[in-house]
Amino acid sequence: MSRPIHGGSLAWAARLAGCAPGELLDFSASISPLGPPCSVNEAIQAAFSLMGAYPDTEYGALRMALAAYHDISPDYVLPGNGAAELLTWAARDLAMLEGSVFSLSPGFSDYERALKAFGCVHSEVHLLHEERWNLARWDENFLHYLPLAGVKDFSRCGFLLNNPHNPTGAIFSRERVRSLLSQLGLVVVDEAFMDFMSPERDQSVIDWVEAFPNLVVIRSLTKFYTMPGLRLGYAVAQPETLRRWQQWRDPWAVNVFAAAAGVAAIQDTDFQRATWDWLALANARLFEGLDTLPSLSPLPSCANFFLVECAVSTTALQEALLKRHRIYIRDCMSFQGLGDRYFRVAVKTEAENQRLLEALADVLPTLAGDDAYAR
Amino acid sequence: MSRPIHGGSLAWAARLAGCAPGELLDFSASISPLGPPCSVNEAIQAAFSLMGAYPDTEYGALRMALAAYHDISPDYVLPGNGAAELLTWAARDLAMLEGSVFSLSPGFSDYERALKAFGCVHSEVHLLHEERWNLARWDENFLHYLPLAGVKDFSRCGFLLNNPHNPTGAIFSRERVRSLLSQLGLVVVDEAFMDFMSPERDQSVIDWVEAFPNLVVIRSLTKFYTMPGLRLGYAVAQPETLRRWQQWRDPWAVNVFAAAAGVAAIQDTDFQRATWDWLALANARLFEGLDTLPSLSPLPSCANFFLVECAVSTTALQEALLKRHRIYIRDCMSFQGLGDRYFRVAVKTEAENQRLLEALADVLPTLAGDDAYAR
Repeated sequence: MSRPIHGGSLAWAARLAGCAPGELLDFSASISPLGPPCSVNEAIQAAFSLMGAYPDTEYGALRMALAAYHDISPDYVLPGNGAAELLTWAARDLAMLEGSVFSLSPGFSDYERALKAFGCVHSEVHLLHEERWNLARWDENFLHYLPLAGVKDFSRCGFLLNNPHNPTGAIFSRERVRSLLSQLGLVVVDEAFMDFMSPERDQSVIDWVEAFPNLVVIRSLTKFYTMPGLRLGYAVAQPETLRRWQQWRDPWAVNVFAAAAGVAAIQDTDFQRATWDWLALANARLFEGLDTLPSLSPLPSCANFFLVECAVSTTALQEALLKRHRIYIRDCMSFQGLGDRYFRVAVKTEAENQRLLEALADVLPTLAGDDAYAR
Repeated sequence: MSRPIHGGSLAWAARLAGCAPGELLDFSASISPLGPPCSVNEAIQAAFSLMGAYPDTEYGALRMALAAYHDISPDYVLPGNGAAELLTWAARDLAMLEGSVFSLSPGFSDYERALKAFGCVHSEVHLLHEERWNLARWDENFLHYLPLAGVKDFSRCGFLLNNPHNPTGAIFSRERVRSLLSQLGLVVVDEAFMDFMSPERDQSVIDWVEAFPNLVVIRSLTKFYTMPGLRLGYAVAQPETLRRWQQWRDPWAVNVFAAAAGVAAIQDTDFQRATWDWLALANARLFEGLDTLPSLSPLPSCANFFLVECAVSTTALQEALLKRHRIYIRDCMSFQGLGDRYFRVAVKTEAENQRLLEALADVLPTLAGDDAYAR
């Protein structure tokens, strides 16, 4: 069984740890530790009676609930079998531009799959150059670079932007998205982690979709509400775009459990508030704990995960944590340019984060030569 | 709310009947009345603990169970988010032939959607011509017709065949599929209703997939096991074909509930045997009952549904059955060439079939003028 391409392959990790997948403490997938909320579990139980009939192809109740949450019209919402399914159709739209499609590197590995699937000319905007991160001004540099690279017609170029950005945890302001939107033919913003931002930190551009036909926003409901096994995401875009996608895909893409869970989740304001409160504190404490450990330099993150630079081999570290502590961290081998010197960890509960920090403190010295560890 | 394109829009029908969707007796969707089996319900309950993690992208347990059932290698199996999702990717392969793609008419309306999605040149082989059905020899006629229609290179043509055929309920022998397979570039056989055939009546061509790189078989698990709300199907084809599809779609297409349900369902031999026993009897009795009613001529069917020719308007009949009996039959407006003179009904339990027959006997005389009804 080879090293998995995507994070969260518990089967692979459990085999290495010599335990059942359920016995692992999984920091590799950036999923909330608080859910699924009771409201979601109840909605799924209540949906059992719907299993024997086809889903409503209009997904009326779900679209209305999502639209109400964002204060937009339901015509602008299309639910999907996870954000990744919708990404596939967004990539097909990007391919129709016939110019270059840009994305940030490092970035989510499934972007490459989706863009390749429809033959996009894919170019990467590198955030990391000679070990220095440029998270603050990459967009200005990018727009400055386009004409220098011989691009004359910006309207034939597209951008697939992840905001907040995985794996760094950086968030880009709405104004920075707007600068792309005003120049490029199509901007797809993957806001899979945006729901982790409390209202005062939110930088979603969903409310711009009515004004910009060249904007598509993709959201996930599975990370915040702890239900990635259920598959549920949604796209927000102008109705014409969504109608086109519906002609491409089958009419029953979302199962009845996911549809019911989505309605319950998006209306669960108590769970949302509790998650924002948890994250504010847990994020700060885990950052501090990681930053205190020798060999480790976490990047500041607004999201429920940290990218951590590491003075020792992270694949060796991953193995040691699995074998000695049954803790699974995400190596960054699939993120271009990061290789063996970075890992990513989710923010979990206080007790779990503490276990991670203690395990790291136990394992790191044995991996680092004395000099490296003392740096 | 307009008349739905696909069958099984319970929301539309319930509104017309003035009741809740759950109060309808639904003959419109060709779903088994016997399930879901207990084994499936138990598997779903047990899968709740998996909801918080991503599905295994290999779907190892499910692929092994399906492969074991068909006595093939798991490499030849790809699970999908319903047969319709896999149909989408099969259509993309058909489009790559660059020749004409044929399907039977009337046929499942989602075929047209899928073939259009990737720009196939779609041609229809008409089974009904001047009110006469040609279910016995359409394939010979078709292969004879191809050169006459100017087609020189058969290997650039494809066929999307439904076997057993919806809506007629006809089954075509394996030998007839073989004659297409030996001449055309790609044959996709949608065997969504094949599992309703007992082993002695089975005409599946799944065991030919190893020998024919130009054969793709698509199966559903939701009709036989009464779980269309859950979304689950699978494709059987050579590994190279399936690897290509996996690059096109996202890696987590099947939710954890569906994956668990699929393993339980395919191993539930008691439920399978009970379904075959039920269908043999229920099919025969419902055919006889329908055939006895004036105005109605059911086509003989091997499957769990009947196409019925009707001397009165079937949209009027559908409305009358909804309003007076809360019974929902499938009109055939979306099946090309059938229009208002045919309807389709599922085979359900003995008691339910009896209710349908009584309701038809009640409603038909009021719809038919005396002369028409006496024909």
